Amino acid sequence: MGDELHIEVTSEAQSNTKLEVKERGHEAVVDEPSQFGGEDEGPNPLEYMFTGLAGCLNVTIHHVALEKEVEVKKLEIDVTGDINLEKFMDGTGERSGFQEITVEIEIETDTGSEKESQIIQEAEERCPVSDNLQHETNVKLNKG
Amino acid sequence: MGDELHIEVTSEAQSNTKLEVKERGHEAVVDEPSQFGGEDEGPNPLEYMFTGLAGCLNVTIHHVALEKEVEVKKLEIDVTGDINLEKFMDGTGERSGFQEITVEIEIETDTGSEKESQIIQEAEERCPVSDNLQHETNVKLNKG
Repeated sequence: MGDELHIEVTSEAQSNTKLEVKERGHEAVVDEPSQFGGEDEGPNPLEYMFTGLAGCLNVTIHHVALEKEVEVKKLEIDVTGDINLEKFMDGTGERSGFQEITVEIEIETDTGSEKESQIIQEAEERCPVSDNLQHETNVKLNKG
Repeated sequence: MGDELHIEVTSEAQSNTKLEVKERGHEAVVDEPSQFGGEDEGPNPLEYMFTGLAGCLNVTIHHVALEKEVEVKKLEIDVTGDINLEKFMDGTGERSGFQEITVEIEIETDTGSEKESQIIQEAEERCPVSDNLQHETNVKLNKG
């Protein structure tokens, strides 16, 4: 199972906040609400990141549950965080990203609470987006 | 400028791959292509993460350029990565996320190439999503 999967998105700025993005056959729009100079035509970048985390945990929790022969009957995933925008705004202050991201999971299965917790913990370790947020990842920027 | 911004997305699983997500007034669907058991009703989680990075770099590059009184005339941002799915699939192997994420930037401005490179480098440091990917971030999972 050592297969490598290639992931690619391409995009072009439509304004200082709006970005049109192509992901395989899909298209998405990123924008900011008016308080950050945008027209709110789509979720903002941080909401996209949180959506990726929620989507990855959904897939991975179901995958791990299936391995353990547990049926997931209902799964709700909320992702929240508070971010200090000082470094983004003027270049000073601490790190620009979230210090902490909180995920609230409501799950209903055909097994007990302890096994549900094991599934969630294992899914957190095997979810790629969770791994990329929790550990250092090299982001290489090339200017064409 | 020490304001904190609260970011929140809520979601509910529709299948083992499909997740319906609400982000303020916006809605999104995450899914997987058929090779991973989905129906490809939306971008996959990794594409959402890359979209967040591209959107964040767009906003931050424009923000830093404005500070330096540089006009951005055109900006294209592509994000790519190859991921080994071994740990996701069966729990063995190295880290589950990307070892490296590559961003290709095509930019046209009213200044020279050296200043463009300075803007991009500073934007990388001040972009929250880039920061959360490049550095360790605590992801706290709570089971309700």
